[in-house]
Amino acid sequence: MPKISTKGRLMPESPIRKLVPFAEKAIEQGKYIYHLNIGQPDIKTPQNVLDAVKNNSVEILSYSRSEGINSYRQKLAKYYQDTNINVSDKDIIVTTGASEALIFLFSSIMDPGDEVIIAEPFYANYIAFSTATGVKVVPAVCNIEDNFALPNIEVFEKLITPQTKAILICNPGNPTGYLYSEEEIRKLSNLALRNDLFLVADEVYREFVYDGEKHFSILEVEGMDEHAVIIDSVSKRYSMCGARIGSLVSKNKTVMSTVLKFAQARLSPPTYAQIASEAALDTPKSYFTEVNAEYLSRRNTLIKALKGIEGVKVAKPKGAFYCIAELPINDADHFAQWLLEDFDLDGETIMVAPASGFYSTPLVGKNQVRIAYVLNKESLLKATNILKEALKVYNN
Amino acid sequence: MPKISTKGRLMPESPIRKLVPFAEKAIEQGKYIYHLNIGQPDIKTPQNVLDAVKNNSVEILSYSRSEGINSYRQKLAKYYQDTNINVSDKDIIVTTGASEALIFLFSSIMDPGDEVIIAEPFYANYIAFSTATGVKVVPAVCNIEDNFALPNIEVFEKLITPQTKAILICNPGNPTGYLYSEEEIRKLSNLALRNDLFLVADEVYREFVYDGEKHFSILEVEGMDEHAVIIDSVSKRYSMCGARIGSLVSKNKTVMSTVLKFAQARLSPPTYAQIASEAALDTPKSYFTEVNAEYLSRRNTLIKALKGIEGVKVAKPKGAFYCIAELPINDADHFAQWLLEDFDLDGETIMVAPASGFYSTPLVGKNQVRIAYVLNKESLLKATNILKEALKVYNN
Repeated sequence: MPKISTKGRLMPESPIRKLVPFAEKAIEQGKYIYHLNIGQPDIKTPQNVLDAVKNNSVEILSYSRSEGINSYRQKLAKYYQDTNINVSDKDIIVTTGASEALIFLFSSIMDPGDEVIIAEPFYANYIAFSTATGVKVVPAVCNIEDNFALPNIEVFEKLITPQTKAILICNPGNPTGYLYSEEEIRKLSNLALRNDLFLVADEVYREFVYDGEKHFSILEVEGMDEHAVIIDSVSKRYSMCGARIGSLVSKNKTVMSTVLKFAQARLSPPTYAQIASEAALDTPKSYFTEVNAEYLSRRNTLIKALKGIEGVKVAKPKGAFYCIAELPINDADHFAQWLLEDFDLDGETIMVAPASGFYSTPLVGKNQVRIAYVLNKESLLKATNILKEALKVYNN
Repeated sequence: MPKISTKGRLMPESPIRKLVPFAEKAIEQGKYIYHLNIGQPDIKTPQNVLDAVKNNSVEILSYSRSEGINSYRQKLAKYYQDTNINVSDKDIIVTTGASEALIFLFSSIMDPGDEVIIAEPFYANYIAFSTATGVKVVPAVCNIEDNFALPNIEVFEKLITPQTKAILICNPGNPTGYLYSEEEIRKLSNLALRNDLFLVADEVYREFVYDGEKHFSILEVEGMDEHAVIIDSVSKRYSMCGARIGSLVSKNKTVMSTVLKFAQARLSPPTYAQIASEAALDTPKSYFTEVNAEYLSRRNTLIKALKGIEGVKVAKPKGAFYCIAELPINDADHFAQWLLEDFDLDGETIMVAPASGFYSTPLVGKNQVRIAYVLNKESLLKATNILKEALKVYNN
């Protein structure tokens, strides 16, 4: 049998995937599982999005332009302008999800062996995209003690080598829920400019910000035209993860023309999903007001309940819909599997994402889990109660 | 400004793209262009496909499974079984177009520096996927004189080095329209087995076969379970290029589990498009009978008209909807641009794809163009007449 590639062997398996067989077995045994492990919102997709697809007038489902449908890009530019990001349609390439945007960007700006500094813990698939493109991830470790705030800029300075090409943040963060302040974004931007590095911000959770805070984008910083790249997606914003529509936004023309070559090779992003995404831009403000109010009250419910469990430490998220909780255990991977295999409270258990998959630094975060608040409050209360009882049993 | 990647600089621009600005200018000047350059069929998407999307019952547009929706994979397995390809749903991963399937496969089976032998001329984006993954393309040159049939197997033998990992064919071929015989497929399969190489067949045009010929798939050859990989797509089959749904089919479990890791990193293929693709499998046989009859009569019209032009040589295609024509000129790139910039017949001109983009061997195919018969017969006759008159003017 012919051998597969080295890269193929190195590609990480998702930390959550490993748990799926245990979850499936638990369900077979009749257990009910509260899924705290996933980033798939339970929020209904806006009706205008669903209707646009139902009422589409496509007769020949043809390729769109590789950079995305013009009318969608124009409307998307307007969306960014309204949020104080001064870009035009020419600064936007529509991608098949934020995933593709990141792969195209990594391929366009980095050669194998080049390094990207990423604030850690980070979205697990950043490792997969790096492995796929041969790029080395250099983590800048953030700590639960200070809510996963940006480390001192000197920490970043020390990590920069001649191979460093970019700094990547997720703002607000998955898995931390941390929202970077304007000051932090300006510090990072200065660092990027001083060292002539790209600053890449995954801003897919931009609309989910709580406590009266305001999201500040890297493209709001003056002078960053050649250095800033935003990665974006409709997936979470409009609860339309299955559309697979993202975007890459930058005013750097060389980057954009290079990314376009990768985009042209795969012909075009999906047409129906672009119709849906264009319609999504007409979603009334009230949708976000309601959704954010819902997430806020879920977050408050969850954080309060978690803080009520002995030995649990939690970083209060200011955005997105995740938090990292530190548990009074040694090995969250084992604990997460045990929850599915060996524990239930009246026939119910929970599934959590062990945080080890969000760290590239070995042994860090071993006692942490990511909890997504994509369930309603009643379920969150039941789920946290199960966690409380499970910890008692597990630690005996 | 930070530098982009070497890979980014090496990514080829589509040979047709280069002509787009000239085409746009011609249209501005009021010229009508017959597009013989594109692979976008003018055939209507089957009504059952359009209806399935209009009548979808999605309320939360969520991620599907990374390997594709189960019911779609099961039905797709049945489609393959009905065409004598004995696979189950477990042997299928749904991808975002055949493009993604090829990128995932190249990444899974080849390291940078590894070599893939491709029968030439070939689909231009194979070069882009190779560049993106760092793989070296080794062309096995086919000739217009023998209709682009498979070269002697010794030609392939001589191209094999310790770096060779795979042989890639497109069957029926884009841009040649060549349909490989069962004997040719068996010879290639033996070669792959003897040298422990992957044999990859891009079979996206499988349903478009003329003159009573029968498509013979690499997965119909016994003993190829570990070595054969089919790349497929709904784009041309059901005239739904904008869906962006492809598939990767193989019985090699290591390949499939590796490809799945790349698929998991990008989360899932587009949901609406999978609904459309699943419905496409219910397309009545009569659709293909009609479409194939239409393509056949277009092919006959086109080939006859081309053969009637002095100095034009054409390879008669047995499948797909392209042909390669050799013209009495030296530089098809220049001629194609001249047609748009400097020529018109009563305000009309044609756009063709210079064949140089389909060859990696330098200077080969410089006097050839690819012509797609995705226009109706009347347009094809007008277009070939324009070509005839243009050649007279160009050569004076």
